[in-house]
Amino acid sequence: MSGKDAGQPTKRLLRVLSGETLKRPPWWLMRQAGRYLPEYRALRERAGDFVTLCLTPRFAAEVTLQPIRRFGMDAAILFSDILLVPKALGQRLSFENDGPKLEPLSGLEGLRSFDLAMLEPVGDAASRVCAALSGDTALIGFAGAPWTVATYMIEGGTSRDFYRVRTLAYRDPLAFNALIEAIEEATLAFLAVQIEAGVEAVQLFDSWAGVLSTEGFERWVIAPTKRLVVNLKHRFPKVPVIGFPRGAGLNYERYVAATGVDAVGLDTAVPPAYARTSLQIRLAVQGNLDPVLLRVGGEPMRQAVTELTQILSTGPYIFNLGHGVLPDTPPEHVAELAQLLNG
Amino acid sequence: MSGKDAGQPTKRLLRVLSGETLKRPPWWLMRQAGRYLPEYRALRERAGDFVTLCLTPRFAAEVTLQPIRRFGMDAAILFSDILLVPKALGQRLSFENDGPKLEPLSGLEGLRSFDLAMLEPVGDAASRVCAALSGDTALIGFAGAPWTVATYMIEGGTSRDFYRVRTLAYRDPLAFNALIEAIEEATLAFLAVQIEAGVEAVQLFDSWAGVLSTEGFERWVIAPTKRLVVNLKHRFPKVPVIGFPRGAGLNYERYVAATGVDAVGLDTAVPPAYARTSLQIRLAVQGNLDPVLLRVGGEPMRQAVTELTQILSTGPYIFNLGHGVLPDTPPEHVAELAQLLNG
Repeated sequence: MSGKDAGQPTKRLLRVLSGETLKRPPWWLMRQAGRYLPEYRALRERAGDFVTLCLTPRFAAEVTLQPIRRFGMDAAILFSDILLVPKALGQRLSFENDGPKLEPLSGLEGLRSFDLAMLEPVGDAASRVCAALSGDTALIGFAGAPWTVATYMIEGGTSRDFYRVRTLAYRDPLAFNALIEAIEEATLAFLAVQIEAGVEAVQLFDSWAGVLSTEGFERWVIAPTKRLVVNLKHRFPKVPVIGFPRGAGLNYERYVAATGVDAVGLDTAVPPAYARTSLQIRLAVQGNLDPVLLRVGGEPMRQAVTELTQILSTGPYIFNLGHGVLPDTPPEHVAELAQLLNG
Repeated sequence: MSGKDAGQPTKRLLRVLSGETLKRPPWWLMRQAGRYLPEYRALRERAGDFVTLCLTPRFAAEVTLQPIRRFGMDAAILFSDILLVPKALGQRLSFENDGPKLEPLSGLEGLRSFDLAMLEPVGDAASRVCAALSGDTALIGFAGAPWTVATYMIEGGTSRDFYRVRTLAYRDPLAFNALIEAIEEATLAFLAVQIEAGVEAVQLFDSWAGVLSTEGFERWVIAPTKRLVVNLKHRFPKVPVIGFPRGAGLNYERYVAATGVDAVGLDTAVPPAYARTSLQIRLAVQGNLDPVLLRVGGEPMRQAVTELTQILSTGPYIFNLGHGVLPDTPPEHVAELAQLLNG
């Protein structure tokens, strides 16, 4: 935890998040702890269901550490799920084969007051990970950004088109805003639990930022993210925030200019040259190897990694994928990637 | 068809496609012929299945004309489907409740030589529509762009993640390119049938342009579209091409600069102010009211229409949605929109 207490951070990931350029960029992968690892699948089997896995500290800590032991990434990301927030707001949550299922909400009526105690195991897991991590590995916490969490709450799961939530947002913006604010408040508390337990940076996943019109993006992505960042910075001025507005496309620049995040995650579609000239001049960038290339491996992957790092390593840069590791990715490909990146 | 024969076009849509700015923009809507109309549902019932509807000229012509009779758009778009090309290439096609189903292909082995005769009814339908359309209404033909058609051919339908097709493209780019070229050639022939029967402009739907990395976008969206446009322009120099690279985001500018299209369709996420300053200076733009707003109707829709037309009507502009009409859109909302736009 030396990075937090003593002025300048020393861990490689945190140095980049504070704006430093490192010759060899630090790296981690979204969904680095997950189904592509046999040891994850074994533990998931033991835990029974996914929610139990997230809320049992020794399991969540173990799963968080698994990829670090194998591949030595520069950061661990606490194993958890963005939908624990709706669960703590009283919405029933389960995970089936085709993804998460929530009892769809039509408004605020179905919500009860936020049950923070339900999320305390996530803090316990973070403490365990901190105790186990060695010197230079940072621990990242995370939450869903309010818009993305709201899409799940209204749609009842993932969606192809997000018509229910977008219709509600257009038809009754006041009610929808009340939902967004309830999520915001719960998210702040959820992140505070993680930070107080030792996470050193947080990432806000706005996975469905790309389905909105410009006006919707301004109102439901930018505004809540900005308020959340202000509140986080007020309570935890030294904890950097990474925003990941996946699919934001032409709105990436506005997101970076307006939200106050310390770093921005690039999805697979963001041109690296654009990221360098238009985003990295302002803040650290993170991304964006196509996860399909990690699954394919070999020469196509190596070549893409070389090109990507050449373009972005001249500024503050964290290597990552443009989306999560695919479940059928061979772990050997991640080992190959580690060899390229660990120097 | 006077617009095609006599130098300058006279129909409002074609005037804008040739670069003219009209005070009151012409309009049409993607999926303006479709399930939201009771008369469409009745005819679909009679036809039995969707493919029969597309390939029976009197049915396809009737469905094409239905929205024009009700709402008086400035253009009809020939009722057809982008997946008729894979069908004519020998792939079995059916439409189920959750969308199109194709027998997934793994490469070129499953393709037979292109059966152009199968698509002739589409030309017959176009001739019927031309004969029935009155003075100022233009007729648009269309096809899928090669990348998007390839995604359906490899995935066997719509997909959430497009892993199969993206994996093939990375693993075996030569085989994938051969597939793309086969689609390209068939698409050119498919569009030629439509143009020779009287369509006055064509739109290339690249619905899944947004799932690629920058490099993939260059190779699988830009390159085939550019070749297709060159070949179309060679055979039909006076027929304008509208490109619709849905989800292209930060790659929109490159698409516009490199492909040679005469106009570009804007998806819902493209900021209108960006479209004005970065795209419309080069070519006509078309779009991009959120279809959810058409479904919601009333004041939110009216306000958005006013803002959109104010921003874009200072250059060559065709009003449209950012995506197709939603099946549960009340026809009265389209009537309300028509009232705003027909002046």
